[in-house]
Amino acid sequence: MAQKLYAYAHDITWRCSSAQAVELFCNFEKSQGNYLVDADENVLLDCFQQISSLPLGYNHPELLETCNTTAAQSAMINRPAMARFPFPNFPALINKTLLKVAPRGLGQVITMACGSCSNENAFKSVFFWCMKKKRGVELPPLGDPAYESCMWNQPPGAPKLSILSFEGAFHGRTLGALSTTHSKPVHKIDVPSFDWPIAPFPRLKYPLEEFERENATEEVRAQILQDISTIFLEVAEDLVEQWNTKAPVAGLIIEPVQAEGGDFHASGDYFRKLKKMTERQEIAFICDEVQTGMAVTGRWWAHEHFEMESPPDVVTFAKKMLTGGYYFSDEIRWDIVRVKLNFQDFVLFADAMHQSSSHYVTYDVTLCRATACWTLGWGDPVKLHLLKKTLKVVNRDNLVEHAEKTGKHLIGGLKQLEKLHPGLANGARGLGTFSAIDILGDGVRDKVHKQLLQKGVLVGVCGADTMRFRPCLLFTPTHADMLVDNLDQAIRDVKKS
Amino acid sequence: MAQKLYAYAHDITWRCSSAQAVELFCNFEKSQGNYLVDADENVLLDCFQQISSLPLGYNHPELLETCNTTAAQSAMINRPAMARFPFPNFPALINKTLLKVAPRGLGQVITMACGSCSNENAFKSVFFWCMKKKRGVELPPLGDPAYESCMWNQPPGAPKLSILSFEGAFHGRTLGALSTTHSKPVHKIDVPSFDWPIAPFPRLKYPLEEFERENATEEVRAQILQDISTIFLEVAEDLVEQWNTKAPVAGLIIEPVQAEGGDFHASGDYFRKLKKMTERQEIAFICDEVQTGMAVTGRWWAHEHFEMESPPDVVTFAKKMLTGGYYFSDEIRWDIVRVKLNFQDFVLFADAMHQSSSHYVTYDVTLCRATACWTLGWGDPVKLHLLKKTLKVVNRDNLVEHAEKTGKHLIGGLKQLEKLHPGLANGARGLGTFSAIDILGDGVRDKVHKQLLQKGVLVGVCGADTMRFRPCLLFTPTHADMLVDNLDQAIRDVKKS
Repeated sequence: MAQKLYAYAHDITWRCSSAQAVELFCNFEKSQGNYLVDADENVLLDCFQQISSLPLGYNHPELLETCNTTAAQSAMINRPAMARFPFPNFPALINKTLLKVAPRGLGQVITMACGSCSNENAFKSVFFWCMKKKRGVELPPLGDPAYESCMWNQPPGAPKLSILSFEGAFHGRTLGALSTTHSKPVHKIDVPSFDWPIAPFPRLKYPLEEFERENATEEVRAQILQDISTIFLEVAEDLVEQWNTKAPVAGLIIEPVQAEGGDFHASGDYFRKLKKMTERQEIAFICDEVQTGMAVTGRWWAHEHFEMESPPDVVTFAKKMLTGGYYFSDEIRWDIVRVKLNFQDFVLFADAMHQSSSHYVTYDVTLCRATACWTLGWGDPVKLHLLKKTLKVVNRDNLVEHAEKTGKHLIGGLKQLEKLHPGLANGARGLGTFSAIDILGDGVRDKVHKQLLQKGVLVGVCGADTMRFRPCLLFTPTHADMLVDNLDQAIRDVKKS
Repeated sequence: MAQKLYAYAHDITWRCSSAQAVELFCNFEKSQGNYLVDADENVLLDCFQQISSLPLGYNHPELLETCNTTAAQSAMINRPAMARFPFPNFPALINKTLLKVAPRGLGQVITMACGSCSNENAFKSVFFWCMKKKRGVELPPLGDPAYESCMWNQPPGAPKLSILSFEGAFHGRTLGALSTTHSKPVHKIDVPSFDWPIAPFPRLKYPLEEFERENATEEVRAQILQDISTIFLEVAEDLVEQWNTKAPVAGLIIEPVQAEGGDFHASGDYFRKLKKMTERQEIAFICDEVQTGMAVTGRWWAHEHFEMESPPDVVTFAKKMLTGGYYFSDEIRWDIVRVKLNFQDFVLFADAMHQSSSHYVTYDVTLCRATACWTLGWGDPVKLHLLKKTLKVVNRDNLVEHAEKTGKHLIGGLKQLEKLHPGLANGARGLGTFSAIDILGDGVRDKVHKQLLQKGVLVGVCGADTMRFRPCLLFTPTHADMLVDNLDQAIRDVKKS
């Protein structure tokens, strides 16, 4: 089967995509939960789950039920332009899904089709907010030269503003998002970029003990971590100040764990100080939870681990959340809407309520600054139906706690591997099941990855030496043991060869 | 019903979207074909179809069949990362759908999730191609400073290159696409932009006769059109040359009809000359068919009307095509893939074929310059299943010809309205059913739009004075008559008031 498929790919797929990116042809219909079935009917324990994108694994029976509902099928074949022509229970659906799991302090949400668009549009919201602060009002007065100059891509209408990002970050591949992505040259080379500031990310070495003084007390260790935070923070804050004369920083974007870059963690202390810095500098803190959201870290949102005093201003999501989008604070919300809804819109809605039983009201949308990435509106509503069912399962089956427990078990097993293979397996780390280990030595990681696949276990890689694990929420300690045992054996095989 | 909904929107929707953009709450489940049912069970003739996005109207029974297939449901709940983990018939599905209707001369295609991402990634392909031309090879040699500088958003790795666009254009709302969008200040104000060149679009006035000398012969009229083309072309070409020292133009992007801007048409003569100019200047010609594709203009792709000697280098699509994406020429395709697939990949695939029956092969993707806008891979495969069925219906029922015939009938009717309401209804124009008319006078268009809605006919607006029609492919001359009759009556009502 696979023979024919690869041959066919040679004929056909090369016309539509980079065929050498293909890792496996998969029989999705036969796959179940944690197990992926390939085109040859080999069964794999899938610890990667379509690049971290399936919350409940393959063919979850309750999601299949949702597919058979009229609501989901209607959303699929009558795809609404949500922003203008919503279905009646759209507000209720948003309320029951996205707003139900909103990060603390963020009461606003907008849906998007993908992670890149979520980040791009989060940037736009932050730019709007930044200019509103500078001006004191949402929009310049009518007749202001900004309205003309923006049409020519020139300031003041198209202002020189920037987003600060971090070395090793990955936030997407469209031109704005790519200007904040710095994980691999191959993503960026030959693409024009905004000249935006880039700060170093305070990568902790794993295990932390390695670079700390032996026999140090807890206090000394905490002090070392704080010193590291302070140094890295100063560099970031200096950059914000330097850029003031060039392209003022409107906000920064950071991942709770740098995922594509190599699963790099920073301390809670750093995140807390960074948040304070954004308040001091009056810039927005955008937390990119596209890969870390939806319970996998043992919290609903990974940034909860950091116990920041005040929440991020914006949190972006996609992947396991099924729909893309971003949460934001009331402060970030553009006034043109807020003001209208607090006062003028009341009149507008009252008018609507009066007329709507037999007539129609067309709102004037000219002044509405929709940030939507496409004209179909905001995202794909069928994903909200699937998300609703997914949330039901996650809550009912306590899958947030489950991820925390399973993660502890998994990371415990990985730490055992470090002891079994010193100098080769290193830096086991993770939050919940969102975890990784480094396999050191030139090309060794890739050999082990391949060997592991031949044993029937599929994992991901990232950075130069890192193997990453992104199982679904149904992953159990038993699966974790299977992964660790097979990884141990794969390392032994590679050592022997 | 609607009373409650608008009140609920006041409570809830304001937390997730700009509620004043809401035009109607719709009962999609009860809607059928050309008829949209609203939350109050009012039935509307829908000539706008979710901002031009539904090819076969509401609840097409054959699309509903597709929703009930295992293939579609599997794609919906096991969303694959297409680029790395495709399903077995993915190559065949691409071949039977997108490649079957590929524009002449464009044998390559890549799928995307939305129109903005399609355009952004088309730009990236064009930048890759441009740099390859300059260097003579796909990528710089290892160790070249470009690999380091791109990580800091600096040249030479992040080169100063640009995309030329046109006044009045709309290509999307992400930061790259937005730098080529110039239809309304409200889309652009406060958002940083690439400083890329913008050429005037040679808007023809409608009817053409108005600005031509009376009693002019066909030859004289043709000559006038050619003179216009030449003047506008010179401005565009001058811009390309001016930008050479600043940020060389890698390609231009143009809509066959400027849709959001106000349904502006240019002559075939202009498009033919523009294409020649891009060849002379060695820049890419990107045709944005996001709104004009999929048969609505009476051709599969609107640019076919222009009878250009050689095809565009890139054609982008979304909306009625159900999936986003772009077609491109072999010339634009990045070499790293082409070379590999012509020679090295043969070895790689042979290796895969040898091993794949019991083993697994992981391809090295490090050098693969995936342009994908998101990490889930390329687009949403369930859309390809729906597209397959849609294409079957379009071909079987000759809907391309049908759109041409219905369009002629509709535009004939609109021209009658011009005669009935001189000085008020003006500039009826269109290709197929993709059509528009201007309703002149301060605020008159919006009044007529509202009045028409109250008569049960839903249309769109664009530009300052324009009413646009974007029916689905099942729209018939009978529906066109209903639209024209009600529009006539709505204008009379507004005149009276």
